Amino acid sequence: MNTAELIARKASGAALGPAEIREVLAGFTAGTVAPEQMSALLMAVRWRGLTADELTAWTGAMVDSGERLDLSSVAAPVVDKHSSGGVGDKVSLVVAPLVASFGVAVPKLSGRGLGHSGGTLDKLESIPGWSGSLTTEQFLRQLADVGAVIAGASASLAPADKKLYALRDVTGTVESIPLIASSIMSKKIAGGAGSVLLDVKVGSGAFMPSVAPARELARAMVDLGTAAGVRTVCLLTSMAAPLGRAVGNALEVAEAVEVLRGGGPTDLIALCLAVADEMLTLGGQTGSAASALQDGSAYAVWERMIAAQGGDPHAPLPRAPYVHEVLADRSGVLTRLDARSVGSASWLLGAGRAAPGDDVVASAGVLLHAQVGDQVEAGQVLLELHAEDPARFDAATAALSWTVADADAPPTPLILEKVS
Amino acid sequence: MNTAELIARKASGAALGPAEIREVLAGFTAGTVAPEQMSALLMAVRWRGLTADELTAWTGAMVDSGERLDLSSVAAPVVDKHSSGGVGDKVSLVVAPLVASFGVAVPKLSGRGLGHSGGTLDKLESIPGWSGSLTTEQFLRQLADVGAVIAGASASLAPADKKLYALRDVTGTVESIPLIASSIMSKKIAGGAGSVLLDVKVGSGAFMPSVAPARELARAMVDLGTAAGVRTVCLLTSMAAPLGRAVGNALEVAEAVEVLRGGGPTDLIALCLAVADEMLTLGGQTGSAASALQDGSAYAVWERMIAAQGGDPHAPLPRAPYVHEVLADRSGVLTRLDARSVGSASWLLGAGRAAPGDDVVASAGVLLHAQVGDQVEAGQVLLELHAEDPARFDAATAALSWTVADADAPPTPLILEKVS
Repeated sequence: MNTAELIARKASGAALGPAEIREVLAGFTAGTVAPEQMSALLMAVRWRGLTADELTAWTGAMVDSGERLDLSSVAAPVVDKHSSGGVGDKVSLVVAPLVASFGVAVPKLSGRGLGHSGGTLDKLESIPGWSGSLTTEQFLRQLADVGAVIAGASASLAPADKKLYALRDVTGTVESIPLIASSIMSKKIAGGAGSVLLDVKVGSGAFMPSVAPARELARAMVDLGTAAGVRTVCLLTSMAAPLGRAVGNALEVAEAVEVLRGGGPTDLIALCLAVADEMLTLGGQTGSAASALQDGSAYAVWERMIAAQGGDPHAPLPRAPYVHEVLADRSGVLTRLDARSVGSASWLLGAGRAAPGDDVVASAGVLLHAQVGDQVEAGQVLLELHAEDPARFDAATAALSWTVADADAPPTPLILEKVS
Repeated sequence: MNTAELIARKASGAALGPAEIREVLAGFTAGTVAPEQMSALLMAVRWRGLTADELTAWTGAMVDSGERLDLSSVAAPVVDKHSSGGVGDKVSLVVAPLVASFGVAVPKLSGRGLGHSGGTLDKLESIPGWSGSLTTEQFLRQLADVGAVIAGASASLAPADKKLYALRDVTGTVESIPLIASSIMSKKIAGGAGSVLLDVKVGSGAFMPSVAPARELARAMVDLGTAAGVRTVCLLTSMAAPLGRAVGNALEVAEAVEVLRGGGPTDLIALCLAVADEMLTLGGQTGSAASALQDGSAYAVWERMIAAQGGDPHAPLPRAPYVHEVLADRSGVLTRLDARSVGSASWLLGAGRAAPGDDVVASAGVLLHAQVGDQVEAGQVLLELHAEDPARFDAATAALSWTVADADAPPTPLILEKVS
């Protein structure tokens, strides 16, 4: 293989052969294709895209770079779930136990947050004692016994993706729909579930700012999953405003528990039910997800799921020593509360990290007292900022962006499209 | 500077600021911008191009990465010359002494060949004793004393270009008009001449296959030179067929000497005179270049130029021990003799190198007995292959591509355009 010639060919707009793609990705993993060659190829892919055949080969090569988890020991139907990440997105915390309460196993491999959207592991780690580090044996046993497990991905699943992502992160090649699709789906395929429900967020607080590229990403991922024998359904859902009223690690866990106990904000409940219904359908089960929230059966699985990983589901969550109230400056309707601005504020309060490996503050974040569409009065509390260090309030307040107006808020559907 | 963000911005189609370009190139030279970041940026530049302001800043940063040669000690007008490289292109060997014979100093910094087109230093090294390695002092003294010098570029001129080119070579980012323009012009500007004549080759044996991109490259280089205070003129010349009848190091030197002594093939003479006339005009001199070839004054400078660098201009050149004749398979007109195919044959015979640092065979190459437009008879010698190893003849013969037909050859102008 002449790697320079191969890169130049891709840059000129030609499609690469499946064997070439496998060879170049295997070479990168093995170190015979240099990082400077791989990053140039990644930029050429960002430029020219990948054909369906190229994308299938690329993703297959990433799956083949590691193990594929064998879930055959789990008798129940297995449905995985993935979100592209948004502000206040604690849906996984709710739906994993909720769906499991119907006898569908949910093996959720999660990551940590970077930047303005939080990571599921970071959120759960605010529960005293809880750990997301499981061996494969522990992971499989909990999946069979409890039916739900949320844990960090093993380094043995699609290791090429991890190496590739680290390179993309420093070379301006993150923003490429085929590369994003391949990164997500290689891990989902390697994860071994028979079905997967994808939630692609659209809007200011999401990676995808508008529906068109989100739809393209969804199509690519559904096709990749299907080609690999994984039944895949993707919802496009709105991330114009934060999801629910809580943003930040412990604050989001508390809100997820509220939903699991039959309460919580309407938008969050609605999305959890929509996602759960799709997952139940994928798992071949029927039933009322809403009643499982009301009758305590979903919460019962939550308690077992948290306890199985060392956590105390009844322990008090960390609370921030300082709370700063942000007031509405006029009366009217809250027509806009920019999701990214709330994510940034939460990040500035300490809930997120600037670099991989940084610590996050469990108690930091933002608690909304009003959501988009609500009537507010001048001087009322619009939202609370929570922090361990009051010096952070000024910057967080400055990051926020919202509108209170006389007009009604425009209708904002939560579920935009379904791709399957 | 957030390098990843800068690369992503360029990839998204935005223009970078001059200070950003200077910082990223200085960072690459200093090692703080990683090769994998630079190669991704280079691919983004291949994708999006560079605006005129970006290109000026990029080239300026390369010039500023090293010294700018001070030619103020040379009293004569100084005109540099550069060719983008072609098959059988020995024009520099002729015009350097030819133009110098009119009192215009020609400081020609040259490179070595890679692939199918030969390097000027490789050609001259077939002369016993000759060396292209001069100190800056030797270079300047010879320029003042003899008026013509052809030598390897000092590592202190535009060192960023050398590092950048090595990266482009392995990352599929050679084919970018702004990067090519910047690479050539940074070295020409750093070379210190007041004027420069560029010869951009167009056709199968050249880097530029057609006139449109060649014109774009010419325009970019002329503008860069002008902006840096270097009067710059560019000729676009045909490289559809080899230039002259000789291809290969010693064979080309012999043909250049033939022209300097008043003989040689018409196409080569015509191009040498056209280039020399432009260089004389740039140097503010008038005179008949043709008569300087006839009356021996150009050859006299050649003798002094070669001798000044340790060469014996009268020593016999190396001759290949094996010569293989390739015959015309039919009678008619030679309507096509593909330049690249002849370059490849010469390379396969040992005249070129596959990797930097390889040795080249001085005597190897191709000698044409017919040029495009000539009538040939079935069974006559079309060309000779010269090699030290007769095992190379089969592959070289197979590489050749030509057409003998009943039709007349289409007219092939040698000088296609002039950009100034």
